[in-house]
Amino acid sequence: MDRNFQRQPKESNQMIFGIRAVIEAIKSGKDIESLFLQRGIAGGLMSELKTILREYDIPSQQVPVEKLNRITAKNHQGAIAFISPITYQKIEDIIPTIFENGEVPLILILDGITDVRNFGAIVRTAECSGVHAIVVPKKGSAQINPDAVKTSAGALYKVPICRHDNLLSIARFLKDSGLQVVSCTEKTDDFIYKPDYTAPTAVIMGAEDEGISFDLIRNSDYLTKIPMMGEIESLNVSVSAGIILYEVVRQRVGASASQ
Amino acid sequence: MDRNFQRQPKESNQMIFGIRAVIEAIKSGKDIESLFLQRGIAGGLMSELKTILREYDIPSQQVPVEKLNRITAKNHQGAIAFISPITYQKIEDIIPTIFENGEVPLILILDGITDVRNFGAIVRTAECSGVHAIVVPKKGSAQINPDAVKTSAGALYKVPICRHDNLLSIARFLKDSGLQVVSCTEKTDDFIYKPDYTAPTAVIMGAEDEGISFDLIRNSDYLTKIPMMGEIESLNVSVSAGIILYEVVRQRVGASASQ
Repeated sequence: MDRNFQRQPKESNQMIFGIRAVIEAIKSGKDIESLFLQRGIAGGLMSELKTILREYDIPSQQVPVEKLNRITAKNHQGAIAFISPITYQKIEDIIPTIFENGEVPLILILDGITDVRNFGAIVRTAECSGVHAIVVPKKGSAQINPDAVKTSAGALYKVPICRHDNLLSIARFLKDSGLQVVSCTEKTDDFIYKPDYTAPTAVIMGAEDEGISFDLIRNSDYLTKIPMMGEIESLNVSVSAGIILYEVVRQRVGASASQ
Repeated sequence: MDRNFQRQPKESNQMIFGIRAVIEAIKSGKDIESLFLQRGIAGGLMSELKTILREYDIPSQQVPVEKLNRITAKNHQGAIAFISPITYQKIEDIIPTIFENGEVPLILILDGITDVRNFGAIVRTAECSGVHAIVVPKKGSAQINPDAVKTSAGALYKVPICRHDNLLSIARFLKDSGLQVVSCTEKTDDFIYKPDYTAPTAVIMGAEDEGISFDLIRNSDYLTKIPMMGEIESLNVSVSAGIILYEVVRQRVGASASQ
């Protein structure tokens, strides 16, 4: 499969501290994975930083100074940022390119997968199954840190990751772009085998405990579930992702190529 | 699905030390998960223990006294055993029962899966996909310890585990019992979608690095592989197990029930 969105490995989760340094990192286009600001600090440079955060739409956490001091003993001035090991991309840029390449889009939306190892494992499987891009929410998703990169077997450098404020608007954008949106959820009687995945498709997976958020469920074209033959009734989410993504593969290439 | 082989949880990985205590534990039918014997000890009771180990076909490891002293400060007399949290079963007893219940056997053979978390995750998926029993080798398989039980989400108490010296003789026994043996390996051009899994089936999965041993490959009815659409060409083994086991589910119940 042609892949047009590859990135080269960068230094993993580099730490930047000091207000000016953080401002410059953001202005230079670095992707901030997490940003801790000291609670109660205001004035000059910090106001400038906060303006830039709004401008670049970067989430931050207000924390007590003790937390910052535990992260570094150096003079952090109330601001510590971690640079993401990957460069986030925009799904709006990716979808047209897939169509232009004559490929059938397969997009994976991860709604609230916070466990780093599960996230990394899903990215690895996504790469193997030909997923073109993965969309995650800006808040409430697993940190993309060196552990995630390791669990992904490097796939985090191969599959584009898109981070968005509002997954619902992304789902609507994907539908407007001609993709069917398929949610993997227990709240249905239909099995994952029902949709025709040879059509452009976005698959939504939710967290093991909370599942997919109501708005996304309501705006899906299909709700599908994985058959449960035992008593435990609960697969690991990375295994579930593998099962549904490979049902897509089976329909697209597997059955025709070999059965 | 009717399950006839359930067991109740027992105390996890209980430690037993002292030669007489270990002998009595074995004689009382407890399943030994691992057994450490002090190198160089011979004579009376130890000879009796070794005779019993041969009689009950229980593997043990000869270790320096320092290793035993690190495990317990108590008077171990050169013998420390860990009792398995599960009771191992015999595949020869299980197969006839499946047929008698009017079910189509689905057996999973794990050849050299040594990672405890992968092993637990596979057992969890096996429970969800209706696997009747899992066969592992006596040597070179993951320890069944509290970590494995936890990763399995309790499935280790639901799916019978069978431990055998010789997986090749087990594969032959399964073929003689009317099962087709399907190996999941890269050494083929056929995809996992080719076999008809509505027939009685044993699926063999190998370790991520070494794969399935040559003898098992050679004695399989089908070699099948999972299509790889990306560049990484390597799925996690627990995800691979989910993909092939759910191809069995799809053929057996999924497609007919919902498509």
